[in-house]
Amino acid sequence: MTGMDLTVATLRDLAEGAAVLGTGGGGDPYIGRLLVERQLREGRRVTIIPIDELPDDALVLPSAMMGAPTVFVERPPSGRGNVAALRALEEHLGRTAAATMPIECGGLNSMMPLLLGAQLGLPVIDADGMGRAFPELQMETFAVYGVPGSPMSIASDHGDVAIIDALDNVRMERLARVMTVEMGGAAYICDYPMDAATVRRTAVPGTLTLGMRIGAALRTARERHEDPFDALTAALAGTIYTHGLILFRGKVVDIDRRTVDGFARGHVTLAALDDPGDQLRITFQNEHLVARRDGEVVAIVPDLICTLNTDTGAPVTTEALAFGQRLTVYAISTPDIMRTPAALDCFGPAAFGLPDPYTPVEQLTAGTQVGA
Amino acid sequence: MTGMDLTVATLRDLAEGAAVLGTGGGGDPYIGRLLVERQLREGRRVTIIPIDELPDDALVLPSAMMGAPTVFVERPPSGRGNVAALRALEEHLGRTAAATMPIECGGLNSMMPLLLGAQLGLPVIDADGMGRAFPELQMETFAVYGVPGSPMSIASDHGDVAIIDALDNVRMERLARVMTVEMGGAAYICDYPMDAATVRRTAVPGTLTLGMRIGAALRTARERHEDPFDALTAALAGTIYTHGLILFRGKVVDIDRRTVDGFARGHVTLAALDDPGDQLRITFQNEHLVARRDGEVVAIVPDLICTLNTDTGAPVTTEALAFGQRLTVYAISTPDIMRTPAALDCFGPAAFGLPDPYTPVEQLTAGTQVGA
Repeated sequence: MTGMDLTVATLRDLAEGAAVLGTGGGGDPYIGRLLVERQLREGRRVTIIPIDELPDDALVLPSAMMGAPTVFVERPPSGRGNVAALRALEEHLGRTAAATMPIECGGLNSMMPLLLGAQLGLPVIDADGMGRAFPELQMETFAVYGVPGSPMSIASDHGDVAIIDALDNVRMERLARVMTVEMGGAAYICDYPMDAATVRRTAVPGTLTLGMRIGAALRTARERHEDPFDALTAALAGTIYTHGLILFRGKVVDIDRRTVDGFARGHVTLAALDDPGDQLRITFQNEHLVARRDGEVVAIVPDLICTLNTDTGAPVTTEALAFGQRLTVYAISTPDIMRTPAALDCFGPAAFGLPDPYTPVEQLTAGTQVGA
Repeated sequence: MTGMDLTVATLRDLAEGAAVLGTGGGGDPYIGRLLVERQLREGRRVTIIPIDELPDDALVLPSAMMGAPTVFVERPPSGRGNVAALRALEEHLGRTAAATMPIECGGLNSMMPLLLGAQLGLPVIDADGMGRAFPELQMETFAVYGVPGSPMSIASDHGDVAIIDALDNVRMERLARVMTVEMGGAAYICDYPMDAATVRRTAVPGTLTLGMRIGAALRTARERHEDPFDALTAALAGTIYTHGLILFRGKVVDIDRRTVDGFARGHVTLAALDDPGDQLRITFQNEHLVARRDGEVVAIVPDLICTLNTDTGAPVTTEALAFGQRLTVYAISTPDIMRTPAALDCFGPAAFGLPDPYTPVEQLTAGTQVGA
């Protein structure tokens, strides 16, 4: 294999970069990072392989946690449930997985396939199905390009396992969601079983190494006392995330955050430091969905709207938002594979009940083309 | 096979007898009876075989509906979901079922295996796992005597199918219950997969033919203008349900009935016609759980407490209870297999949160031993 072995240093970079790609949601990668770090320190290896590595017919089982990442803080994963989920789907399919991969490169789920890879010696493909974080299982490029999410497996750390073969991917999400709640609010899943050729056709490539690049850029900027946002923009250069730009800089003057139907829904409003009347308001549902400056949309899902600490560039999740925080709102354009009409049907503004049409962030703003 | 072919006449008797064995719950067998009747009229056959018919290692997949029987009234079964559930469990086990059987002989679930048997030409074993009706999947003699309910299958009529492999039978019930709700409130299941030798060791035998006998006795009594309760007592003679007796006769003077946590919970109070101060109060959770006369327990779960129309002997379910109804409360002793300490742990008074100990109905009352 031509894969790259994960180190504690690259893991830490990835954890921070994945939090940026979480766009305010996705769950803090912290607890997942600690679990993977322990695996590495105990001598186990995680090999990250490029998307073109495996033969066409090799079976790939994407893996993730489902539910509330906060549950993991109170009850850390034992390492049984995620293995049980993979084994159950292998058994159901009558085939052995050649690799796992993230369904979601943003937030905690960037880490979960690495943990599984370390535990089982299974390579992890450098690609995912969201190119960021999204709240639901049908919001996958896999789904957009015709891969059925079913059969999927779901398991708890306590010994409960199920296989769900749903009518469609939305039904799969609904059924897995109620199982997750009944399993204690967090569960492990493997879904969208597919061969490596299908991964190449439907996944967002290179998103684990992108996360590492972003994390490394922010770390290096801090070490060198350089501007983290310049570093972030430089890190995106040459990637399929072609545009990165600062949307706004200010301090938090209002937060409206409620838990509704299992989601963190709400708004955060920032005011410019030098002009309190100049405000940016972000609407979120776990992840940031739309940013409006003085009422005008300046970035909208599926483009990434990232809230970062103005001094350090450290990503700030919606749970961590607090009055008076000085934040920089940084937008990143999604890759073309996530901007097709089919993709926008699946995870564009209307999928979140937003009335606004999708307009690419680089058209909405006087954006800086990375590398331009 | 030495089995008996079901006729429309025996089916109708069974539907009424099963409603008696539903002890106020279990769901009205009516809609199930219509579905099976249509199968018979279209020329399909249902073969009911004795519990000792199949070779020891033959695979038996018990089948049932789960959820609210009322859903079926608004959205009758299409005949797809129940077949999908059986096929999914066969596929998961890599084996073909030699027969199905009821998990619950009381109420609607007496009918569901007959429907499946007719659709697939699969014999139905004359036995079940409750000997009556109970509200939850772990309340099975199969479970009492060590058969795991998992793996189980669950399917909707819409195309959703799942396999649940739970840590234990209570967890299985919980996971299947949330799936049922998400599937629209009613679903089809196959659980407690086992071989025929295990059925013989753990099931309550002869409960389909018992239902037919009870139904036939009530029908014949009506045709001949004889006392239906004498007929009911005579029908029990020689069966493993050794005691049957009238507990009380009166009219409904109070009903307290609420839907709590998906159960019909409440009380019904009857007053004697000749002495309004002489009252019997029945507490129910879907099924009747305990009957108290002037505060003293006269029958308690798992013994059967049946509310029957005093004139006709027709069973009256908790949903159909109404003020002024003249009812006869008839108690039936459960078979010995349902009275062991392990059985009482599973579905005795404490399993329903009742403070009273279990005492056999024939000890609580000056009962009439059937045939004595």
